Amino acid sequence: MTYKLILLRHGESEWNQKNLFTGWVDVDINEKGVGEAKKAAELLQAEGLLPEKLHTSLLRRAIHTAYLALDGCDRHWIPVERSWRLNERHYGGLQGLDKAETLSKYGEEQFMAWRRSYDTPPPVLDKDAEYSQFHDARYADIPEAERPQTECLKDVVARMLPYWESNIKPDLAAGKTVLVTAHGNSLRALVKHLDGISDADIAGLNIPTGIPLYYELDDNFKPVTKGGKYLDPEAAKASIEAVKNQGKK
Amino acid sequence: MTYKLILLRHGESEWNQKNLFTGWVDVDINEKGVGEAKKAAELLQAEGLLPEKLHTSLLRRAIHTAYLALDGCDRHWIPVERSWRLNERHYGGLQGLDKAETLSKYGEEQFMAWRRSYDTPPPVLDKDAEYSQFHDARYADIPEAERPQTECLKDVVARMLPYWESNIKPDLAAGKTVLVTAHGNSLRALVKHLDGISDADIAGLNIPTGIPLYYELDDNFKPVTKGGKYLDPEAAKASIEAVKNQGKK
Repeated sequence: MTYKLILLRHGESEWNQKNLFTGWVDVDINEKGVGEAKKAAELLQAEGLLPEKLHTSLLRRAIHTAYLALDGCDRHWIPVERSWRLNERHYGGLQGLDKAETLSKYGEEQFMAWRRSYDTPPPVLDKDAEYSQFHDARYADIPEAERPQTECLKDVVARMLPYWESNIKPDLAAGKTVLVTAHGNSLRALVKHLDGISDADIAGLNIPTGIPLYYELDDNFKPVTKGGKYLDPEAAKASIEAVKNQGKK
Repeated sequence: MTYKLILLRHGESEWNQKNLFTGWVDVDINEKGVGEAKKAAELLQAEGLLPEKLHTSLLRRAIHTAYLALDGCDRHWIPVERSWRLNERHYGGLQGLDKAETLSKYGEEQFMAWRRSYDTPPPVLDKDAEYSQFHDARYADIPEAERPQTECLKDVVARMLPYWESNIKPDLAAGKTVLVTAHGNSLRALVKHLDGISDADIAGLNIPTGIPLYYELDDNFKPVTKGGKYLDPEAAKASIEAVKNQGKK
């Protein structure tokens, strides 16, 4: 008996395109992202990988992507669970800032530490700042002391894993094909856990937007094939290269 | 303490427009329906009636309408539950037939009995007929003996009410503003129950597409104002007149 898990990073967003740090700011996908989500539906359909349960973050770009991906493969009707624990990494004081400007202002070392180090969070975002979500009704259930104002990837792992254990694994164990539609960093956190990637090596892992990543898991929820399988491997490879160069001059 | 319940019939569908009996056939909303769903979002926003929990049927026209209505008032992230118990009435052997042709073939008496009588179901739809959903994966959880092949409104009341009791009322009791996005007949069934409408009088009740109908309910889940309140009363009135004349020569 193996379990079927599909990971899908939301399609390109309005702020991916503008090269701004997004984090918990609730921007939508853009036209390219809509196309990616529809293409993801075709890939799922072609592979016969039809989701039976959806898990998403509370952010519009993931919810919209999931809506289109499921609608396109006639799975709009499956049960859905949403959680802030699948949200993108909270980018703290960088939310809303231009990536290229941030790079030239702070230098490559600091810039890359914020973007890719495992345990260096960006500066805390003030609760009342323009791009803060601290007072957003959708996060009212998170005790104030736990409500993020910045996060490093280690923080994302810590808040994502309980959801994996309590909400996603039981669906897999029940034999359901599970789709998780989330974000670059919440999915990196999950892949780190699944593939047993070290704190150092996770820095080199990028997940492309809009391409379903399929994991077949064994009885112990360990990948049968390390790294899983992108349903469009060539597009994944090209996109991973592009992500690596984001913000670079 | 009163409870807040919002009922929303899906926007105009591809088959409303073509004047075909739809039932459980999974057609989408058309362009007018998209506009109605977006308008519903504006009405909810203007009224400050922001849903905290969504219940929908398993049909695309309701799911799509709910997606647009919630996205438009920034409530895309709320929890959602879906159930076949909120589906449109199963129209049996009439599914896929033209309403005007059916009227002229069977005569007004039979036609109106199928459309509006409380307890006369249309002919049974064969399990393997073109417009049957008997073998659709989304209904696999319904025991075969209970899986509808035709329904009268009485049947809809019987399968909808347990969901109202077990799934919707507890959300209201928890103080949540609840949105139910469903269909002409599943909503008529609910309104019949809420307003205590007789089996005879329910024939005269039509619910317009895409206009939120707000019920404030008392401690006993009885409407504070019988019939509730349409958020756009004039559009509702015009639309109810139009529905009454559907299929008429």
